[in-house]
Amino acid sequence: MFTKFGVSNLTSLYRSGKPFATGAVIATIDESKFQQVSTLPHFDVEETEDSVIFTHKMAKGDVVYGLGESLGPLNKRGRIYRMYSTDDPEHTPDKKSLYGSHPFLIIDGVSTFGLLVDYPSEIIFDVGFTNKDILKITIPSHNFDFYIFETDDKQKIVEEYLQLTGKPYIPPKWAFGFQQSRWSYFSENEIRDVASKFRELSIPCDVIYTDIDYMERYKVFTTDKMRFPDYASMVKDLAKEGIKIVPIIDPGVRIEEGYPVYEEGKRNGYFCKGKDGKDYVAAVWPGLTHFPDFLNSDVRTWWGEKYKFFTDMGIRGIWNDMNEPAVFYTLDGVNRVVRTIEEFEKSDEEDKLDAVLNVRDAASNMAVKREDYKSFYHRLDDGTIVNHDDVHNLYGFYMTKAAADGLSKLLPGERYLLLSRSSYPGLHRMGTIWMGDNKSWWEHMLANIRMLQSLNMMGFFYTGADVGGFGSDASPELLIRWMELGAFTPYFRNHSALGTRPQELWQFDEETLNITRDIVRLRYAFLPYTYSEFMNAVETSTPFVMPLSFVFEDERTKDIEDQYMYGSSLMVAPVHEQNKKGRYVYLPESKWLNWIASKYEDREMKVYEPGDHYIKADLHEIPLFIKQNGMIVLTEPMNYVGERYVTELTVVGFVTGHAHYDYYDDDGTSLNYLKGEYANISIDIAKEGKGFKINLRKNDPNDILKIKKVRFEIYDDQGNIQISSKMI
Amino acid sequence: MFTKFGVSNLTSLYRSGKPFATGAVIATIDESKFQQVSTLPHFDVEETEDSVIFTHKMAKGDVVYGLGESLGPLNKRGRIYRMYSTDDPEHTPDKKSLYGSHPFLIIDGVSTFGLLVDYPSEIIFDVGFTNKDILKITIPSHNFDFYIFETDDKQKIVEEYLQLTGKPYIPPKWAFGFQQSRWSYFSENEIRDVASKFRELSIPCDVIYTDIDYMERYKVFTTDKMRFPDYASMVKDLAKEGIKIVPIIDPGVRIEEGYPVYEEGKRNGYFCKGKDGKDYVAAVWPGLTHFPDFLNSDVRTWWGEKYKFFTDMGIRGIWNDMNEPAVFYTLDGVNRVVRTIEEFEKSDEEDKLDAVLNVRDAASNMAVKREDYKSFYHRLDDGTIVNHDDVHNLYGFYMTKAAADGLSKLLPGERYLLLSRSSYPGLHRMGTIWMGDNKSWWEHMLANIRMLQSLNMMGFFYTGADVGGFGSDASPELLIRWMELGAFTPYFRNHSALGTRPQELWQFDEETLNITRDIVRLRYAFLPYTYSEFMNAVETSTPFVMPLSFVFEDERTKDIEDQYMYGSSLMVAPVHEQNKKGRYVYLPESKWLNWIASKYEDREMKVYEPGDHYIKADLHEIPLFIKQNGMIVLTEPMNYVGERYVTELTVVGFVTGHAHYDYYDDDGTSLNYLKGEYANISIDIAKEGKGFKINLRKNDPNDILKIKKVRFEIYDDQGNIQISSKMI
Repeated sequence: MFTKFGVSNLTSLYRSGKPFATGAVIATIDESKFQQVSTLPHFDVEETEDSVIFTHKMAKGDVVYGLGESLGPLNKRGRIYRMYSTDDPEHTPDKKSLYGSHPFLIIDGVSTFGLLVDYPSEIIFDVGFTNKDILKITIPSHNFDFYIFETDDKQKIVEEYLQLTGKPYIPPKWAFGFQQSRWSYFSENEIRDVASKFRELSIPCDVIYTDIDYMERYKVFTTDKMRFPDYASMVKDLAKEGIKIVPIIDPGVRIEEGYPVYEEGKRNGYFCKGKDGKDYVAAVWPGLTHFPDFLNSDVRTWWGEKYKFFTDMGIRGIWNDMNEPAVFYTLDGVNRVVRTIEEFEKSDEEDKLDAVLNVRDAASNMAVKREDYKSFYHRLDDGTIVNHDDVHNLYGFYMTKAAADGLSKLLPGERYLLLSRSSYPGLHRMGTIWMGDNKSWWEHMLANIRMLQSLNMMGFFYTGADVGGFGSDASPELLIRWMELGAFTPYFRNHSALGTRPQELWQFDEETLNITRDIVRLRYAFLPYTYSEFMNAVETSTPFVMPLSFVFEDERTKDIEDQYMYGSSLMVAPVHEQNKKGRYVYLPESKWLNWIASKYEDREMKVYEPGDHYIKADLHEIPLFIKQNGMIVLTEPMNYVGERYVTELTVVGFVTGHAHYDYYDDDGTSLNYLKGEYANISIDIAKEGKGFKINLRKNDPNDILKIKKVRFEIYDDQGNIQISSKMI
Repeated sequence: MFTKFGVSNLTSLYRSGKPFATGAVIATIDESKFQQVSTLPHFDVEETEDSVIFTHKMAKGDVVYGLGESLGPLNKRGRIYRMYSTDDPEHTPDKKSLYGSHPFLIIDGVSTFGLLVDYPSEIIFDVGFTNKDILKITIPSHNFDFYIFETDDKQKIVEEYLQLTGKPYIPPKWAFGFQQSRWSYFSENEIRDVASKFRELSIPCDVIYTDIDYMERYKVFTTDKMRFPDYASMVKDLAKEGIKIVPIIDPGVRIEEGYPVYEEGKRNGYFCKGKDGKDYVAAVWPGLTHFPDFLNSDVRTWWGEKYKFFTDMGIRGIWNDMNEPAVFYTLDGVNRVVRTIEEFEKSDEEDKLDAVLNVRDAASNMAVKREDYKSFYHRLDDGTIVNHDDVHNLYGFYMTKAAADGLSKLLPGERYLLLSRSSYPGLHRMGTIWMGDNKSWWEHMLANIRMLQSLNMMGFFYTGADVGGFGSDASPELLIRWMELGAFTPYFRNHSALGTRPQELWQFDEETLNITRDIVRLRYAFLPYTYSEFMNAVETSTPFVMPLSFVFEDERTKDIEDQYMYGSSLMVAPVHEQNKKGRYVYLPESKWLNWIASKYEDREMKVYEPGDHYIKADLHEIPLFIKQNGMIVLTEPMNYVGERYVTELTVVGFVTGHAHYDYYDDDGTSLNYLKGEYANISIDIAKEGKGFKINLRKNDPNDILKIKKVRFEIYDDQGNIQISSKMI
């Protein structure tokens, strides 16, 4: 039996029991109007003692989108996915969980609809794995909210979802620049060297990260005085070069007498409690730690204020990591291992094999035992005690909320970059995620392409993966190809792990440096388009990155997972396989203008007919396609966002009839756009005879734009170009 | 300084120091004629105290083939490979070693040549990973043989390689049938049920495997009397149904008083010795075991005779596993773990993290410590004592030699199926390998396609991977697509691991059963072509499976890794991605006749122009292409090879000018073909006007063929078909 609430014309909530109020949904639901129903559209429902099971019969051609940060194809059919936030650095095809839990689906087919299960613990989605044609959702609880979005229009489903959960987060404009990280740059000097190297080599860069080793013994909200004698000066000095420092922060607070964060948390009862009512102990980087109870608003307020440590230094970006929360071991876990060792010692000779394997299994599973998550507790604002496992997927969400609320108070009217590793629906309105600890595997480039699309459907418009791969060693070719992809993802960070091959652009050969520098410059040339499109996407609740099938009515696009729309006018088709000198591309519906891009300055374009094409793309080239009657907006690359005013734009358009484009800009750092402080240039281009008629209208009441001139490179469907310019 | 020997017009041996005589090469080398040289063609050579390093500058477009059983692309550029036979069941992109060691390369480009490093311990191939354009081979020794093959013709390089190492092994004809396995079928009854199920459901099948659990406590050359009360009768009964039983055999001999294999080995000193001169102890499935010293010919003779246990039951197939040799742990290894535990217990609170991680690391690396391989010894025929590590890659090779020599003596004049997991060059002349413990990952289907080509270059013509994947759970779609691929690999076995989803064709839905049954029937319909092509391939030392680039002079084919020639007339283009309803195919040089195959009976053909094509292929369909002026030879499917005489053949040809085909057949089970006891039908088809002129010549002095009629379905380049038949 469900209680049904109407949320909008298209969206209904089916409530089972008394769900935990996760905070994912912020739409107002009129709880006075409801009806009791025993069935749900699209699903058969089976209730067992412990769980509710939803099954939906899929038609042969139905495609299933969604699940945000998860492995496998863009079309989620054929696998099992488990919503249970997990820190697992081996993203092999077997893995069913990653860092985030995103129980949202779009079924696109004979009957099209969307769904969100708002339930913060384990949910299993068997999307045609056990039975090819059955979608089976198992919720091991009777208390949850199940939303259904009823429309044939996939973009509209996303819009409804965002109505429910909030508009996507908008970072500062500089967060669209290139970002560099390494676990770890071990000292202030190393950071300064990396920064200099970027400027010396004329590689644009906006952000450098300090990973865990900047802290004193991994104590959050500290800096190591030996290796980073003056972190604040470093921040200030690099700011002059246009480089922003973003520090990592973990949730685990080191147990250490006299350490203020520990002392305050302990004194105020801010930490999660164990079964014995004492502060729960789990080991992470700092050794033994306590976990702040982010589900409690007092704790969040306290924690949020802690970021003052950084904002006072001028820092405007925070990277919250390890907030699944990752656990290396608990004291219980250690005892489990020790017990298996004792069993080994007691075992007979012939049982030694099993006994040693038991040690190995216990030891290697030490970090991820669900029992550990079942052995600590949260205390909600109303005093209710909740077992962590029952709300597990919310920990990163509420750590993010603590940070976002804190930063908003510390930086009134300002924007900030805010990253989390773990996430839950709704986090996208407060900050964002990257795709976690991937590896330098070609397979993970493809995973990046697919997740980029799946995450955008869930409001994570500003996202990306660690370019070049975090774990494992990157080959120069992998780095180049991944940089080409990364240049066309909203979040563009090169990051690599301790012990792996250094991955900064200059760590390889001269050719690799030259190619990747050109790619980063290309990225910066695209910033006017990227930022304008991003802001328009948020405004209209349309994903910034979309699968082709969300835009084109063409059955074949449902098979295309490695090309995507990047903004409204550009399709990106990255080369993501080793040793390839080209790739196949499917062009839906109409003609496309192709740019085999490598350098901003080299803009050779070619018109392609719709259909299948083999496109050559040498190592330094990435295939880009401008949609018919679409345009992109470029500018001269800079060393960092805002280094100079943008005084000239170059519009490259592919116009066969009439093309309209709304160029958007604002100050890029404040929230003043919410008060209407932004500028637009409305561009209309119409084919007229052999040429084009171009019309520009500027709307800039607050004098934001410094643009003096707009250049036009407009192509017709024969590939003829007309170059012109207008002063504005 | 190298000693150079001429091996043939095209092949030279460069000998460094005094290499271990591996036995890989069987060609006669005139050691009286040599010259001392200080350089090698194609390579710069650097000698250090411990190693010799060869570097070759690759041109941008050079393609590197080879390395047999290894991960990564068919073009090996961009990765590091380590030759050191390894039992590692997680074939992730990081892994540098698999079960076999195959130090053979073909560099195809500006200068084309091949090479074989005959050295049986670790070799590192850095094929443009560290530096995009440098091939670097590091041999950590001064004693090795380095062969160079000097010709532009890749097929010729393979031929020279086979001149050196021997003609490929030929299995019995029934080994081209479908084979079923599971770790494990736990009882005679289960095996009988599986066999019945095949016959009941009319799924052709020739072989069923008994994995390790048929043995009594994993003691080799025993059967468990509880679960397999009468193994011999089972073998005999199933033989009547056309089903051959193939048992697994591991090298490790369980230490158990009174167990004859153990007692004999111990008494005669047949086991490898530890540093203390005692029989070396390592734990594998049976618990503590000794390893037979296969590098000694007395041991091989003894071991080879042991297979009599099986041949006496009528068994004609042996599956030698675990012969890297795999080691779960050694007593040293256990002590290492125990020591880390003790350290953990002694450690201070703040060092606990490191201490527990040490336990975990020690425990999880227990199975694969190189130190273990360095702590036991072989005794050669001349009494020389050799450290195992120095000859590590030969262990599986010499276990195979023991089995092959033994079986040849036990079964004079007969063929047998002989599988090994570990291998070294030259093993291909005695038996074969499958691709080891893969997983139910789509990525491993692609690995299968690539390795099939790389292994064929090294003489492993008869090979394949565990269809559906050994580890992990298969989805019905994965099984179907992989069965489609498997039907066009010489070795076609469905195998899956303990604890994974059962993978027999009837374990899924009705549709999956029906599709896969049709695929197996298609496989049996192709047997006349497959067997004839296979035998011709061995005869002419031309790989049975070849990359397109080995056949066509077309730069684009160097990029094509997921299509392959299967015999001389057929190109296979399997769908190997999830949820796809088709795939891209590149057709080199000339027109091709396409069969979107699903059922033997449904033969609809279509002519394609050369170039790029998107080819639709629904779940039940696999794209096949017949080469211009090529033909395939089919027959009615049977339940097992040899169930009935083949009395009718159907030739499907694509003839635009003149087509010639040599059909080969023999008794399929004996070695009499070596004495000339085989039959041929020479088929000539010439385009004449709108029709074709067909000419058949039978050569069958020993009355092997029972064929009465040959049907012809011949297509011209417009796709017009002419159907006819001839009695012969």
